[in-house]
Amino acid sequence: MSILVVGSVGLDSVETPAGKVASALGGSAIYFSTAASFFCNPIRLVAVIGDDFPQEHLHFLQNRGVDLEGLERIEGEKTFRWGGDYTRDLNSAVTLFTDLNVYGEFDPKLPDTYQNTPYVFLANINPELQLNVLQQTTAPKLIVCDTMNLWINISRDALMQTLEAVNILILNDGEARLLTGENNLIRAGKKVLTYGPDRVIIKKGEHGAITLTDSTFFSAPAYPLEEVFDPTGAGDSFAGGFLGYLASVGDTTEESIRKAIIYGTVIASFNVEDFSLNRQQRLTRPEIDRRYRQLQETVFF
Amino acid sequence: MSILVVGSVGLDSVETPAGKVASALGGSAIYFSTAASFFCNPIRLVAVIGDDFPQEHLHFLQNRGVDLEGLERIEGEKTFRWGGDYTRDLNSAVTLFTDLNVYGEFDPKLPDTYQNTPYVFLANINPELQLNVLQQTTAPKLIVCDTMNLWINISRDALMQTLEAVNILILNDGEARLLTGENNLIRAGKKVLTYGPDRVIIKKGEHGAITLTDSTFFSAPAYPLEEVFDPTGAGDSFAGGFLGYLASVGDTTEESIRKAIIYGTVIASFNVEDFSLNRQQRLTRPEIDRRYRQLQETVFF
Repeated sequence: MSILVVGSVGLDSVETPAGKVASALGGSAIYFSTAASFFCNPIRLVAVIGDDFPQEHLHFLQNRGVDLEGLERIEGEKTFRWGGDYTRDLNSAVTLFTDLNVYGEFDPKLPDTYQNTPYVFLANINPELQLNVLQQTTAPKLIVCDTMNLWINISRDALMQTLEAVNILILNDGEARLLTGENNLIRAGKKVLTYGPDRVIIKKGEHGAITLTDSTFFSAPAYPLEEVFDPTGAGDSFAGGFLGYLASVGDTTEESIRKAIIYGTVIASFNVEDFSLNRQQRLTRPEIDRRYRQLQETVFF
Repeated sequence: MSILVVGSVGLDSVETPAGKVASALGGSAIYFSTAASFFCNPIRLVAVIGDDFPQEHLHFLQNRGVDLEGLERIEGEKTFRWGGDYTRDLNSAVTLFTDLNVYGEFDPKLPDTYQNTPYVFLANINPELQLNVLQQTTAPKLIVCDTMNLWINISRDALMQTLEAVNILILNDGEARLLTGENNLIRAGKKVLTYGPDRVIIKKGEHGAITLTDSTFFSAPAYPLEEVFDPTGAGDSFAGGFLGYLASVGDTTEESIRKAIIYGTVIASFNVEDFSLNRQQRLTRPEIDRRYRQLQETVFF
């Protein structure tokens, strides 16, 4: 099954206690696509780059089964760039700079071949763009959405409109509290369900994740990591592993959702072991499956 | 199998967003004993009260199979009293007052009949008293210890001596970070093992608990509660359910430890549903087992 993703493609400069990297491949749509590509293809990418975007990254994406027809390239403009510093706190970056560049005027256009894609991921971008993309799809089977504090604070109305149209919202604990005004995460999750989604997934970093619907509840463990090299892209890698697995099995039963969340957890746990997409580039399916089984043993009683 | 517990017996005045209660039965040894009594008896209590301690509470304890031979009663003195306010933050109380009273001069003495008790719980009291009690035991099979920020800050040397002698340390995430200087909880847990204990259990409130040894790791879910009425005694109820179950099965295999942690989680989740020991007083074994099975379903994938 194919997946459509709209989000950012960029060049990140990141510093963590473990080291630093400049102008490395990054962006929500990139982490998502790479993670999803372990499970299914094609991944249909809707994003925009400038003429400074390195050709090698395009080859990398094509080799992962990412369809680049919807990746707009604007001559004479620069690619989105982000700089973040995690040296003080690995849980939240201090943003050093955000150069929107080509994303300043981004108006996503779906190629005809993309419009009937069954699985849709709206990565963390302006909710107006998320809605714009949704309106161009003709037969979505499952729509999954991410967001962040910025949009909750400055674009709440548009975000609420988007939420009415999506099946699953993925967000972290701080965002869930901010969005709903509820401190208790179970109550926050239930409140999200009143906004439109049938299911919410709340990520809790080192504490794993929870997901709930009106009638189900699942608590997923975190993979017990002693070192986090670079947390950038963990959330998008989680979403990619999650939706990639779901699209590969073609159903959304509670059983498949739970497995998908664990696969998302596994891919995210590998992603933070190196900068940029470095760890995912050398990651193998046997490694993924071994860590999946380790997580099963971690919670068994 | 019998359990020895040394800790506080007191009268608590607590205010939470849900209401308030004055001079209600409380204290670490009380929450522990009541929780443990669902699984085994006798629970041998080492503590001290004044002559103002209500007779009805003694009847309650005796009815739960708590042996009161080691409960010293001092005429002309007052019982330990604590006042806490959770109205701002359910995760941590603002202490309004601590009247040590009889605990100011507490010098625990084990009755002869207590000395060969196989299971020992050192509740959260001064580590010098914990060590003092340990030295009076003759055949401990399993020693479990609790502590808190106060002792880590002001009695670290005594605490480290106690830790050398215990098998399992139970503490919360903030205490684990303070004790070890490690922010990552997996690393914090591993560092605790270098202090003496074979196993550490780190409680994470709404995020459940983790436990690790040199060669094992278990992630336990929290019970998904939407309302916390009064968090007082949750940690001691957890420890009581944990050690009560372990003592009832008589072994410390990884399988039993995991089940014991879930039983601890279950008792703690009930305890916070009402003030003082009110919820435990009307709690039944079928309710406990139902919640145990719910937690199994919560993590299954």
